[in-house]
Amino acid sequence: MVIRPWTADGRRTIHRDRWVDLSAERVTTATGAVLDPYYTLAYPDWAVAFALTPEGQVVMIRQYRHAAALIDLELPGGCVDPEDAPLLASRRELREETGYDSDEADYLGRFAANPALQTNYVHVTLLRNAVRIGEPAPEAGEEVAVELLSVEAVGRAAVSGAMANAMHIAAVFLVMGRLGKLQF
Amino acid sequence: MVIRPWTADGRRTIHRDRWVDLSAERVTTATGAVLDPYYTLAYPDWAVAFALTPEGQVVMIRQYRHAAALIDLELPGGCVDPEDAPLLASRRELREETGYDSDEADYLGRFAANPALQTNYVHVTLLRNAVRIGEPAPEAGEEVAVELLSVEAVGRAAVSGAMANAMHIAAVFLVMGRLGKLQF
Repeated sequence: MVIRPWTADGRRTIHRDRWVDLSAERVTTATGAVLDPYYTLAYPDWAVAFALTPEGQVVMIRQYRHAAALIDLELPGGCVDPEDAPLLASRRELREETGYDSDEADYLGRFAANPALQTNYVHVTLLRNAVRIGEPAPEAGEEVAVELLSVEAVGRAAVSGAMANAMHIAAVFLVMGRLGKLQF
Repeated sequence: MVIRPWTADGRRTIHRDRWVDLSAERVTTATGAVLDPYYTLAYPDWAVAFALTPEGQVVMIRQYRHAAALIDLELPGGCVDPEDAPLLASRRELREETGYDSDEADYLGRFAANPALQTNYVHVTLLRNAVRIGEPAPEAGEEVAVELLSVEAVGRAAVSGAMANAMHIAAVFLVMGRLGKLQF
């Protein structure tokens, strides 16, 4: 079977504000099946930062994630605002959440957060020579503990369940590829 | 900072049907910040199958993902129904989407799809000795092309952008750990 895109019409907004943008469409698949309603969620892109200190430690954060009601070990990260690029966004989130900064940033790539349901991508940045330049400056509702871990410990956390967030696990996988930790 | 869970009250349903369950709550964080509305999306758990043929090929699928408007290389997978376990769900989805089946299943673990916003988990199953037992039997709206790839090719696809879905990239990372392809 050759896979082809679908078409959509009749888009209507179900709920939209600063945090949520839920729409429904009438979708016709490539083989002519009609799916109505087909729901999509529009979000801004997100960026995550894998920040290495001069000593080779990774700047990780621990925070509570309310929907799944779990305390998770994650990479610093947040929204890519319309006016900034993924590299700037990941550096800003690193600074706000951890107090660390770096001016040696490599863009590693992107993946889709959940391409069946969500419009947005997650961008992955590797920041080297990250140093603590001040106190964290979290936004309201951000309560973040900073933890420094070795690269190997982060890799093990990502595959062992100690990191629970799919997007952050996927980001660590991309980083491990760049750092030569994969045997393929 | 010690990270503690938040509390919530005043839950109201914004939109709920067979496909979407969007709620808003009034959330009080551990440090007393009030977030209202805080939106969560309830979904059933999902399961993905990394199925290996007797020849060591991986049974992959290619399909169109409408929200992000991309054609993606993914693992077979789908919803875990209330009455079935993740192993059964991954085997059923493998059979429906590809026509392959296996009775040698290992449960590798789970991660949260998006724990800040979504309630659900993604379960990862390794199915060995997968053989084609019939034609695929996709659901309406599932248009799926089956592709057999080597384990190494799937690993490279996951870190190179050829696989675009965060959850499937994360699942491949867990599998590579089980298969001894990680150097940590």
